Amino acid sequence: MTIEIQLDRLMHELETLAGFSDAPAPAVTRVVFSEADLRAREWLKGLFAEAGLIIREDAVGNTFARWQGADPALEPVASGSHIDAIPQAGRYDGTVGVLGALEAIRYLQHAGLRPRRSIELVLFTSEEPTRFGIGCLGSRLLAGSLSPEKAATLRDDRGASLDEVRTAAGFRGPLDSVRLTPGSYHAFVELHIEQGPLLEQSGVPLGLVTAIAAPATLRFAIEGVGGHAGAVLMPGRRDAFLAAAELALAVEAAARGTGAMDTVATVGVCEIFPGAVNSIPSRVRMMADVRDIDLARRDGVLAAISKSAGTIAAARRVTIEREMLNCDAPAETAPLVLAELRRAAEECGLASVMMVSRAYHDTLFMARAVPAGMLFIPCAGGISHRPEEYAAPADIERGVRVLAGALARLAA
Amino acid sequence: MTIEIQLDRLMHELETLAGFSDAPAPAVTRVVFSEADLRAREWLKGLFAEAGLIIREDAVGNTFARWQGADPALEPVASGSHIDAIPQAGRYDGTVGVLGALEAIRYLQHAGLRPRRSIELVLFTSEEPTRFGIGCLGSRLLAGSLSPEKAATLRDDRGASLDEVRTAAGFRGPLDSVRLTPGSYHAFVELHIEQGPLLEQSGVPLGLVTAIAAPATLRFAIEGVGGHAGAVLMPGRRDAFLAAAELALAVEAAARGTGAMDTVATVGVCEIFPGAVNSIPSRVRMMADVRDIDLARRDGVLAAISKSAGTIAAARRVTIEREMLNCDAPAETAPLVLAELRRAAEECGLASVMMVSRAYHDTLFMARAVPAGMLFIPCAGGISHRPEEYAAPADIERGVRVLAGALARLAA
Repeated sequence: MTIEIQLDRLMHELETLAGFSDAPAPAVTRVVFSEADLRAREWLKGLFAEAGLIIREDAVGNTFARWQGADPALEPVASGSHIDAIPQAGRYDGTVGVLGALEAIRYLQHAGLRPRRSIELVLFTSEEPTRFGIGCLGSRLLAGSLSPEKAATLRDDRGASLDEVRTAAGFRGPLDSVRLTPGSYHAFVELHIEQGPLLEQSGVPLGLVTAIAAPATLRFAIEGVGGHAGAVLMPGRRDAFLAAAELALAVEAAARGTGAMDTVATVGVCEIFPGAVNSIPSRVRMMADVRDIDLARRDGVLAAISKSAGTIAAARRVTIEREMLNCDAPAETAPLVLAELRRAAEECGLASVMMVSRAYHDTLFMARAVPAGMLFIPCAGGISHRPEEYAAPADIERGVRVLAGALARLAA
Repeated sequence: MTIEIQLDRLMHELETLAGFSDAPAPAVTRVVFSEADLRAREWLKGLFAEAGLIIREDAVGNTFARWQGADPALEPVASGSHIDAIPQAGRYDGTVGVLGALEAIRYLQHAGLRPRRSIELVLFTSEEPTRFGIGCLGSRLLAGSLSPEKAATLRDDRGASLDEVRTAAGFRGPLDSVRLTPGSYHAFVELHIEQGPLLEQSGVPLGLVTAIAAPATLRFAIEGVGGHAGAVLMPGRRDAFLAAAELALAVEAAARGTGAMDTVATVGVCEIFPGAVNSIPSRVRMMADVRDIDLARRDGVLAAISKSAGTIAAARRVTIEREMLNCDAPAETAPLVLAELRRAAEECGLASVMMVSRAYHDTLFMARAVPAGMLFIPCAGGISHRPEEYAAPADIERGVRVLAGALARLAA
């Protein structure tokens, strides 16, 4: 089967979608349920309707667009991703998996395929943690990995609750209606840019994801004693920021200490109080992100970090409080999906490589409820979450062709 | 001579002054030329006038209140401090030196003294760097340590120039009219809380300042490479914050490395971009404050920090740009002033100790133009620049009595 997608149309649609943004191009800022997000959703639903898809939205705004199969009683095959974007992000993260799935469906329609199973495009709500502090909000609720009670406690930084915000955006109904019946899809596939440099470095155009790393997010509250930067002698200091600096380096050392390439840890947030040039820092708020595909190994890193925190706190006479904001288990992808992605790649004459995803995706949660897998395409320099994020049209085309092939196989 | 000041009146005035604030009590926020600062100045000028002092203001708002001496042709003796306060500060820093000098003058008047030299109370503009990024604005201009041309380039964080702000506050005229003729005062004495713990720890009520540390302020701009916290492997990272963490620890090590108690260094500001939990820091802005009473030793610390910055930048493959925001020379205080302060303390039957000031004061600059010295009183726990800042009434009383005695001797 020779798959030829309409790449010009797809690239034009990616550009249009990037225009729904609260930041000037090339940056994209599209926080969930912002006006930019809601306008983008309306525009997308227009495209879904043009393609003859049947649209349904759930109480948290996850959007499903179904191409009815020959046997609607069978579990459908699904594909999709997210369109929300962190502040000052790029235009390919998530969006390639939404518009790419639409293009794959339109290709299969144009090619005259009549799938046995329905094929459903899914747009997940709030994959990014920007607004409510927790990533994969929509897919967590679908998979039952986040309880409706816990979700009801979420607030944005203006203090608005998830219920207030989703209701204002037009999404009503109880949150416990969102959860999927386990096994309600035959399979789920997500097409996504790699967000890392490995495919580009290896020159292989496709990555077949075998496992998705388990992210753990830690928040540290470090309390020392402030004072005047001139007047307090060095031996008498209990500087919260110097403790934070040592802890950040200990986070790095703990990740490197596993010796495994798949362990990563990052301190991306560190806020100093009072934050004045002539004041000794009295308090620091710091966040660390630790990921691995091996749960035991990741938990070993968390334990090493805790131990370092204790040592540093004692040596510097500060207190370090630790809060685990989330601590998800890793997911293995489904052999069924992996096998069909590999066959589809072979049919397209394209090389592929097995790899793990160290970034965190809606598939991490979908895999807890249904057989799920992911297909990666290269992105320039491994850069993501920044305006310079870039995926070459030829790579996007290859990804969508393989996705279309895999969806056709899975739905047959 | 038995000096008995009216402590109740002074404590009441300190409390009233603390009420001119943009923060709820006990915190004090009084940024230079804010409405709170201007109302406080009006209230103080009322007190000065009640005491029969002759008031003059210069182009930058330094305020002089003169008690005319028997021989007005002689150079006057001066005493004073500042009333501006950083955000969320306390009520004693600076203010004790202003209201304390007023109380000392009122006591001497009440005791029937007729000094040969005039005694002048000085209220300095913007000792704190909060608004214009540079400390001791008024005393720098008085001493000629800041050129009027450089001062004209200063802007606050809303972009308003010093000229715009001072004119709006009612202070007009060319800035080059501010500079003092060298030797235009016979002596200058500043009464101040220690802002450090040494007096309290030693149980001695008075500190005679022999030298004032030279502050240097460094700003670092660290540029690494950002990326997704999950997707970029540890060996490929160029994390700007980990470089900053190492540099902050190197700043501490450089200060401790001199082996001298009088060397202190602090990193009080560190801002991470983009500052998201799932993004590798691409950029950090960090500030360090390095002080010593020995210029060569302090410059050695600065050189050690520069060397560490180079090593860290190379090892972590980031760039570290360094900018010296200010780099003042230390000051020795005048033997004349020190001797009269010591004699005054002895006359009051009070113990005193020689010490250095590691905090930075208007006296640092006054000492460049006229014979100058400082008198410290204890403050609780060495805490300053915070709402909990506290000086006991009995300690304030002792300080004012000795100040009055020293002023009487210097003006005789």
